[in-house]
Amino acid sequence: MSDSRTAAIQYVQQKRPQFIDELKAFTAIPSISTSPEHKPQLKQGAEWLAEKLRQLDLNNVQIFQTAGHPVVYGEDLSAGSDKPVVLVYGHYDVQPADPLDLWESSPFNATLRGENLYARGATDMKGQILAALNAYEAITQSGDLPVNFKFIFEGEEEIGSTHLEEFIVNHQDLLACDMCLNPDTGMLAKDLPTITYGLRGLVYFEINVYGPNHDLHSGTFGGVVHNPAQVLCDLISGMHDDQGRITLPGFYDKVLYLDDEEREELARLPTGESFYLTQSGAPVLWGEPEYTPVERATGRPTLEVNGMLSGFTGEGQKTVLPAQAMAKISCRTVANQEPGEIHQQLLQYLAEHAPDTVRYEVTKLSEGPSAIVDRNSLYITAMISAMETVWGVRPIFRREGGSVPAVAHVQKHLGVDTVNIGFALPGDNMHSPNEKLHLPTWELGMQALIHFFYNL
Amino acid sequence: MSDSRTAAIQYVQQKRPQFIDELKAFTAIPSISTSPEHKPQLKQGAEWLAEKLRQLDLNNVQIFQTAGHPVVYGEDLSAGSDKPVVLVYGHYDVQPADPLDLWESSPFNATLRGENLYARGATDMKGQILAALNAYEAITQSGDLPVNFKFIFEGEEEIGSTHLEEFIVNHQDLLACDMCLNPDTGMLAKDLPTITYGLRGLVYFEINVYGPNHDLHSGTFGGVVHNPAQVLCDLISGMHDDQGRITLPGFYDKVLYLDDEEREELARLPTGESFYLTQSGAPVLWGEPEYTPVERATGRPTLEVNGMLSGFTGEGQKTVLPAQAMAKISCRTVANQEPGEIHQQLLQYLAEHAPDTVRYEVTKLSEGPSAIVDRNSLYITAMISAMETVWGVRPIFRREGGSVPAVAHVQKHLGVDTVNIGFALPGDNMHSPNEKLHLPTWELGMQALIHFFYNL
Repeated sequence: MSDSRTAAIQYVQQKRPQFIDELKAFTAIPSISTSPEHKPQLKQGAEWLAEKLRQLDLNNVQIFQTAGHPVVYGEDLSAGSDKPVVLVYGHYDVQPADPLDLWESSPFNATLRGENLYARGATDMKGQILAALNAYEAITQSGDLPVNFKFIFEGEEEIGSTHLEEFIVNHQDLLACDMCLNPDTGMLAKDLPTITYGLRGLVYFEINVYGPNHDLHSGTFGGVVHNPAQVLCDLISGMHDDQGRITLPGFYDKVLYLDDEEREELARLPTGESFYLTQSGAPVLWGEPEYTPVERATGRPTLEVNGMLSGFTGEGQKTVLPAQAMAKISCRTVANQEPGEIHQQLLQYLAEHAPDTVRYEVTKLSEGPSAIVDRNSLYITAMISAMETVWGVRPIFRREGGSVPAVAHVQKHLGVDTVNIGFALPGDNMHSPNEKLHLPTWELGMQALIHFFYNL
Repeated sequence: MSDSRTAAIQYVQQKRPQFIDELKAFTAIPSISTSPEHKPQLKQGAEWLAEKLRQLDLNNVQIFQTAGHPVVYGEDLSAGSDKPVVLVYGHYDVQPADPLDLWESSPFNATLRGENLYARGATDMKGQILAALNAYEAITQSGDLPVNFKFIFEGEEEIGSTHLEEFIVNHQDLLACDMCLNPDTGMLAKDLPTITYGLRGLVYFEINVYGPNHDLHSGTFGGVVHNPAQVLCDLISGMHDDQGRITLPGFYDKVLYLDDEEREELARLPTGESFYLTQSGAPVLWGEPEYTPVERATGRPTLEVNGMLSGFTGEGQKTVLPAQAMAKISCRTVANQEPGEIHQQLLQYLAEHAPDTVRYEVTKLSEGPSAIVDRNSLYITAMISAMETVWGVRPIFRREGGSVPAVAHVQKHLGVDTVNIGFALPGDNMHSPNEKLHLPTWELGMQALIHFFYNL
C-alpha cells in the first residue's frame, strides 16, 4: 500500500470524534424538502455544506439558487488534466420525521446508542455526503490528489429532484466529468459491500375525490349520497388485480423484463423471503407470484398508497359522511417506463372507473426516471477492488428498488455512468422513525472511498 | 284560546333577547362528548343545565354521575296526579367542530347573521333543549300547569348514548311517565312541521389494519410487502356491491321492509331527488336503485366510511409504505336489525376477506337501537293540533335517517312511546361546519310546544 494511501486511512481513524461531531451538527438541521415551512432550513443546510466545502479549501464554491431548493457546488482540479474528473453527487435534504412519537430520541438531536448514531438523515444521506468529504479531506492531507473532484449537492432528492435536471442541462461545462459517484445506495448487509447498477424511477401523485360540498350528517344522507371515501377505496382497490398486478391500462407495455443472467444473479443475493420478512416485520410477503421477492422489490414496477385521509380521524366517533377523500399514490418504475406515460395511464384508469357521483383531481407531485448502468466499466472495477480490500469479499451487484433521479439525468446530459454505492444498512430505517447510521460501517466506507479514488 | 295559553305565547315573544343570550351562553361550552380532553366541558355543560333547572324552580334537581358523562334531572309534578306526566328528553353534548377552518365564525362563540344563530350545538340540540325549557317557563308564568314535567338530559347522545340505557333501567321509578317528548328530530322545511315516527339505529366501529411493524421505504419494500392502506381499500370496497347493497353476511336478513302505506306517504314528502341534491351539493345521487332517495335515507340500513387515515398526509410527498391503516365505519340500522349481530357480521366479513399478509383489529365504539313508534296515539294527536295551530298546515309524518337511542330505551324500559319533533331545518348543518339555528323557526317551535302541553 502506498504511503499516502496508508496515511489517508490513518487520518480518518484519528479524526473519528470530529467527524461524528460534524455529522451531529449537519443532522441537527431539519432540511425536510417536502415541507414548505422548512424552506429556511433547506437554505441553512446548503449554507452549512458550502461552508464545509470552503473549510476544505475547495475552489469555486457556490450556492446556486433554483426554482426549488439550492444546489451546492465545489471543485478541486489540482490533480491535473491527465487525471480523471470524478463528480460526487449527494443530497442534503431529508424525509419528514413524523410520526414523531415513534422516535426513541429526537430526530434532529443526533443520539449515540451502541454502535449507531440515531438522527433523521444520518444515513440518508448526510452521513454518506460526509463520508465522501472526509475521504477527500484525508487524501488532501496525505499527498497529491489521485483524481480531480467536483462535488454537487442538491436539496430536492426526497421530492423527486424536481429542478436537478434543468440545473445539469444549464451547467454541463461546469459539471463535465469522466464518471459520477453516488453514495446514496446501500449495502445488503454489514459484511456485504454492494454495487447498485439499476435504480427504479418514481412518479408521485395526489388524488382528491370530492362528493358533497360539505361534510354531511351520515344519518340524514347515508344511503343517498355516494361516500367519497368509499369511492376512493373502490378506485384504489381496482388498481391491482388479485395477483398483485397493476391494472393501469398499458402499465407494463414498456417494461424491460429481467434477463436470465440478472435473475440468476439476484437469486444468489442474501435477500430471500426471510430477509424481507425480518426487515419489514410483515407477517407474510405479497406480490406478483411469478417473481421472487428480490425481483419484485428491485426489477419490477409498483404502485403504492403512501397516504390516505378522509373525514373524522380523531379519537372517538363522529357520524359524518365526508365531503372529500385524499390519497397519495406513487409508482416505482423500471426501464423503459416513462413517468409521463404513467400519469396518462392513471388519468385513463380514473376516467374509465370513477363514477359520476363524484368529482376528482389528480396532481403529479414529482417524477424521476429509472436508470441502468454498465456493470463492466473501469470505474466499477476500481470500486470492486476497493471494496475487496476493505471487506475482504467481492462486492455484490444488484438493482435497487429505490430511486435516485440524478443517475439518469447525469447519464442523459453529461454522458457518463454513475457508480452507485453507499454505506446504509437494511435496518437503518431510512424514511422511517429511528433512522440511524452504523458507525463502524461508515468508517469502513470512508476507507473504501479512499481506496477507490487511489485505484482510479 | 285560553288566557293562560295566550299569556304563555306572549311571554316567549317578550323574552326573545334573554332566550337568545342564554342560548349563546349554553353553546359557548364545548361539550364534545367524543373527545376525552373535553370531559371537564361536559361536566360544565351538566352544571350549567342543572343551574338553569334550579333557576326555573324545578324540584329534585340532580346531576347523576354515570360511567361516562353525567345525566341531569329535574321535575315539576305540581299539576297533580290526575294529569299526565311528560318526560322531556334532551342531550347537552355536541359533535366535534372540526374542520375548524371551514367555520365562518368561531363554533363556540355564537354569532348572529341574518335570521340565524351560528354555533356548534345551536340546533343539535342545545337550542331544542332551551325551546322546551322556555316553553315550560312561559307556562309556569301564565297560570296552572296543564301537565306534570320531568326533564332528563344526557351527555352522550353523539357517542351512542353509551350509558343511558343503564341509567333508565336503574331509575325506572324516577322516570315513570305517560309519554316522552324528544325535540331532537327536525323539520323537512321551515313551513313543514314534521313528526318523526321512525329512527334508524347506529353501530360504530374503528378498524385498524396492520402490515409491517414500522413505516417502510416504498422503494425498498414496494412489491414485496402488502400495503395495509391498499388492503383496507380492498376490504372497504368489498363491503358494497355495484348496486350499493351491503355485503356483510346476513346484513339484510332481519330488515323490516317498508310497507306500501309507508312508501306512499314517503312519496308525498317534499324530499325528492332535488331536495337531496340541493342539501348535499353532490353532483348525482347514489344508492340502491329499487328504492327512492327518501326511502334509502330513512327506511333502509347503510354502511358509511366516517373517516380514514394512513401513512403520510401532509403537504408534499413522503415515499412511505405505511405500517398501518385505519377506518371509522358505521352502520345505520333499521327495525329489526340488532347492533350486536351487525358486529358479528362485520367480523365474519373480515375473517372471510382479510388476507394473511396483514393483521386487523375491530373496535365497536358505540351502538344504539332503531325505533318505530305508534302514529295514532293521543299524544301524537295533541302534537298534530299544536303544529296546525302554529304553522297552519297538518304536520308531515316521516321516518328519519338519524339515530336517537333514547327513543328505543324509553320504549323498552319505561313502556311509553316518544313524540319526536324538533325545529332544526335541513340546511342547519348539524354535524358540519357552520351549524346554525333558524331563530324564527325556533320561536314558532316554542309556541308549538306551549300548545302541545295545553292540548294534553
